[in-house]
This record gives sequence, C-alpha cells and structure tokens, in this order.
Amino acid sequence: MKALRVKSGKLALDDMPRPDGTEALVRVTRSGICNTDLEIARGYAGFEGTIGHEFVGVVVSAHDAPELEGKRVVGEINAGCGSCELCRSGDPRHCPDRTVLGIKGRDGAHAEYLTLPSNNLLIVPDNVSDDAAAFVEPLAAAWGITERVNVLPETRIAVVGDGKLGLLCALALSYASKNTVLIGKHRSKLDRVTGYDIETILAADAAMLTKSFDIVVEASGSESGFASALDLVRPKGTIVLKSTFHGTPTWEAWRVVVDEISVVGSRCGRFGPALDLLSEGKIRVEELISDKLPLRDGLRAMELSARPGVLKVLLTMEV
Amino acid sequence: MKALRVKSGKLALDDMPRPDGTEALVRVTRSGICNTDLEIARGYAGFEGTIGHEFVGVVVSAHDAPELEGKRVVGEINAGCGSCELCRSGDPRHCPDRTVLGIKGRDGAHAEYLTLPSNNLLIVPDNVSDDAAAFVEPLAAAWGITERVNVLPETRIAVVGDGKLGLLCALALSYASKNTVLIGKHRSKLDRVTGYDIETILAADAAMLTKSFDIVVEASGSESGFASALDLVRPKGTIVLKSTFHGTPTWEAWRVVVDEISVVGSRCGRFGPALDLLSEGKIRVEELISDKLPLRDGLRAMELSARPGVLKVLLTMEV
Repeated sequence: MKALRVKSGKLALDDMPRPDGTEALVRVTRSGICNTDLEIARGYAGFEGTIGHEFVGVVVSAHDAPELEGKRVVGEINAGCGSCELCRSGDPRHCPDRTVLGIKGRDGAHAEYLTLPSNNLLIVPDNVSDDAAAFVEPLAAAWGITERVNVLPETRIAVVGDGKLGLLCALALSYASKNTVLIGKHRSKLDRVTGYDIETILAADAAMLTKSFDIVVEASGSESGFASALDLVRPKGTIVLKSTFHGTPTWEAWRVVVDEISVVGSRCGRFGPALDLLSEGKIRVEELISDKLPLRDGLRAMELSARPGVLKVLLTMEV
Repeated sequence: MKALRVKSGKLALDDMPRPDGTEALVRVTRSGICNTDLEIARGYAGFEGTIGHEFVGVVVSAHDAPELEGKRVVGEINAGCGSCELCRSGDPRHCPDRTVLGIKGRDGAHAEYLTLPSNNLLIVPDNVSDDAAAFVEPLAAAWGITERVNVLPETRIAVVGDGKLGLLCALALSYASKNTVLIGKHRSKLDRVTGYDIETILAADAAMLTKSFDIVVEASGSESGFASALDLVRPKGTIVLKSTFHGTPTWEAWRVVVDEISVVGSRCGRFGPALDLLSEGKIRVEELISDKLPLRDGLRAMELSARPGVLKVLLTMEV
C-alpha cells in the first residue's frame, strides 16, 4: 500500500506492506494534514514512519471488537501502555510509554491502512460526512480547551491566530461563550467564521483590547503569539497554549508573576463531544477545506498545506 | 529623615523631609531587603524614590483610624485607586492605577517614616517580634501560593531555589502539604529548614525526580529555574512562578502544551494568614536573618544582601 513516510529525515511516498497484528485494521478514506505533520516532516522529535493523525476510515477487522467491522470510524490518537498509573486512571493521553498515531512510535494515517487498539475507535454518525469526520481530531483538540479551563457563557475569550487551528478553536469556543473574539492577520481567513457568534478583529487593531480578556488562546503557532496573548489577557486571567510551536521563544516571565496570569497547555481532547458538535450541525468544518488531493499526490499536498493562506488540505484514499 | 533612595538611576542614602498628607504616618522600626530592591536599584521598572516594601513600624498618626495610633503594624503594599472594578471587588492588588510601596509610584520602607492608607495596616500580635514581623510581606507572598493553586496534604510539591524566597515558600507550603521538597544548590542553605517537615535535595541529585511533582514552585530567580521546573513537574501538573526575574528567558513552550502543564504566576498574598503563621509559632523566620544593620549603613546592607550565601538582611531604624 501507499503511505506518506519520513525515512532518514526525508519525506517520501512509499510502497509498504499492509499492516497486520492484533489491533483493529482500518482502511483510511480521508486524512487531514496538520501543521504538526509539517513540523514532523522537518524533523521534529525525530519521528520516522508514516505521518498523519487526523482520519476517518472503515474497520476491516477487529478481533476483539467484531461489532466494529464494516463501521465508519475515527480514532483517538494516543495509545497508552494500559498498565501504568495514568492509564489505569483513564488518561492514556499522558502515559509516559504511549505511542501516538503518526507522531510517536506508531505509523500514522496518511496511508491506505492503519491499525489502532479497537477501544481507540469511535463510530461516526451517519449524518457526519467523511470530509467533516476528518476534522474530529483537531476539533476535539479545540474543544479540549474546555477540559482545561472553565468557560462560562459570559467569559471573554480571544483566540489569537486565524490559521486552521485558530479558526477551529474560535468555532468550538463560540459554543461555550457568547463573548468569543478571533484575532488574526488576514481578513480573508477571519471571514471564514462569518455567520457564527464570533467577533473578528485584525491583529493591527487589537491594541485597544489590552488586558481585556479572561481567556486568551494562543493558536498562531508563531513566536509573537505569546507576547500578543500577554498583552490581551487581564490580570489573573488565563492564557491557553494550543500550538506545539517548536522554537524556544523568549518570554517576559515576570509579567506572568506581576499580573498573576495562568498559562495552561492544552493538547488533545475527547472525541465524543467533537462528534456531537458535528452531528448536531453546529460547526460546518467543510468550509475550512482549501483542497482535497489523492494520497498519490501526498507530497504536493504537503507543500500546498505549508503555503500562506491555505487552510485544511485533505488526502483522499479512493483509488 | 534618612531614606534609601533611587535618584536618576543611582542608589543613595538621602536626607529628606518627613512625609505628610492624609494617609497614616508610620515610624518604621525594621525593614527587610528583598531581591526586588536589588533589581529596582539596578534600574528595573524605572522606579525613582525610596525603596523597600517589607517593614514593621509604629503608627504615629492616622486621621481616619485613630485606634491605630501608637500600635505596632505591618502594611499591605498595594494601594488601589479605590474606584475601579478590581478595587470595588476587593482586589486592589491588581488595580491598573495602583501604587506599590517602594516599587511603583510610592515611597517605600527603607526610611525612618512612611505613609500608607490606614486600611492597608494590620496590627501585629504582641508575641510576634519586630524581627519576625518584618517577614510578614514575603511570608504572605509565599503563603499566597495557596491562593493560586489547590494544595492538599498529599500534594507532592517541589520548591526550586534555596534563597530567602525559596526557603520561605518551602516553610509555608510545608504547613499545607506533608510532601514538600526543597531543591537547591547549597547544602548550607538547605539546612536552614532542618527541623521542619521538608525533604531537602541538592539540585545535582534532582534528575531522578523527573516528572514526579504535582506542583513545582520556581523561586530561584535564575534563568535555569523554569527549565528545572519543567523537568520536575508531572504531566498535567502545575508550575508556580514566584520570582520576578527580569530577564527574558527562553522556554520550550511546546513542552507545556504536550504535557498539558499549567504555569501560574503568584506575586503577593494576604497578610492575615502570614501573621497567624508567625503568631502561632509555626515558622521561625528569625533563623533566616543573615545580618541586621542600621539604616545609616543602608548602602552597605544592600551590597551585603547581594552576596552569595547571604539570606535576609534587616535594616533597623533605632537612632
């Protein structure tokens, strides 16, 4: 089968055997390219193997869960060891020995087939399209912010960054707070949230909003994003770090102390609530798709995904 | 009167008129030198005027609170505007127009007299010595950590830094958690907490404690302190930033995201609980005094305070 792989630090579309083993086997139908894929292809974390962690597919076989066979599924990307304290407490996302689909110790989703433990899989409701289902992982990550901070309808939230992560965060959070503002550098991207209960503001105009938000979500993935967030958050407010930006930016740590800010890292989220948001038609993620390319054009799709102005690029596996 | 002042960026012992006005007038009997004083003397935040914010004294006059006259007091250092949203909600510590004793817009405590609003003053119980009372401000700041994070008896806490701030944090937190560890570079300083329920570990031996603490308090005031804290905190744990270190250190922000760490800034704390801790004899802060010098030797006291190995230096105002 074809798979988009990093090998000796280089990205290539490889031919490789279909995976086997005791885990559930899934035939991938769509996968989404995430900025993390771009970082991994540039050598982050030294991952070698098939990249990709956003997908929807159909279960080919699942020995320990035959009821899943033939079902359309998405899959939680972290697979814990199952026996450590964290796994036993129900949080394999932080198991120190976890593997992560297409990120750490486990081949990923930009391939015709993948395997995952069957209890990582969730059935996709019929009214959620394949295109939308490919967004479950990043939407769960966006909604996961509400697992880390308390969001009330009156909470004043700013999302910094109008890339695909920022847009998803704003869309998700607008269902938790009626005071959600999206701040970005591109009017064309900000306009993607027209029709939602989200105010949009160009970054150049954000200075007047200094110290006015209870929660600021840093989703820009840029070195300046945290500085902007520090300007925007009120004393005793919370900054949520969402992008796994792999530089080592500088920060004015003393401002966090003087204003008693909380900085909260947020990575993954639960898939169930994200599937609900899509199934209830609350978020139209299809509008965030910039392009769809077949897996055989995966290298071109990765290049496209890195271009300014491009939002989500999906890979399709139909041959 | 004599006062230790920063003028045109230079520290000097000046003669100046005794302050007047409508606020309470306090004759200072002891003041403590804090690392923030050293930073201000080096030019931080452009403060000009009398430095010092840790003190105990006797009220000379208080027009709006005559019951305070003649009483021994300590004083909350933040004075809010009294009319903004934060002041009206009872938190003048974050009033954007606040003045701060010896730090921002208000002459401080390394002087024979100071003024503060009378409602900033708290009477010192008779069984708390002047030497101990001079520690109320930094002890309140240390205990203030418990206002920002939930500390239970079983919470595993590490305090990084064996300077005066780190020692006070460890002493205070050991009354909230039975699992408090102090990590520092100097065995002689670590030994200051002998007799308390605190485990001490040399920084060089801390590698084995990677990812094992629920809460890590960064109190080292050094650029490497945050990196150590990131190593020590468990996934989903909390780092408390306590030192107003005025560099712009680099940080691996992505680790905060991947491990879903919370980084919580903590500055000041309430004075009442700190007075209680001293009055109940739970913390013997006098053991942290390295030296006591008269105000007229203030410049020498500041130099002494900056030397390695020196803990708290107190100024005495008796003539």
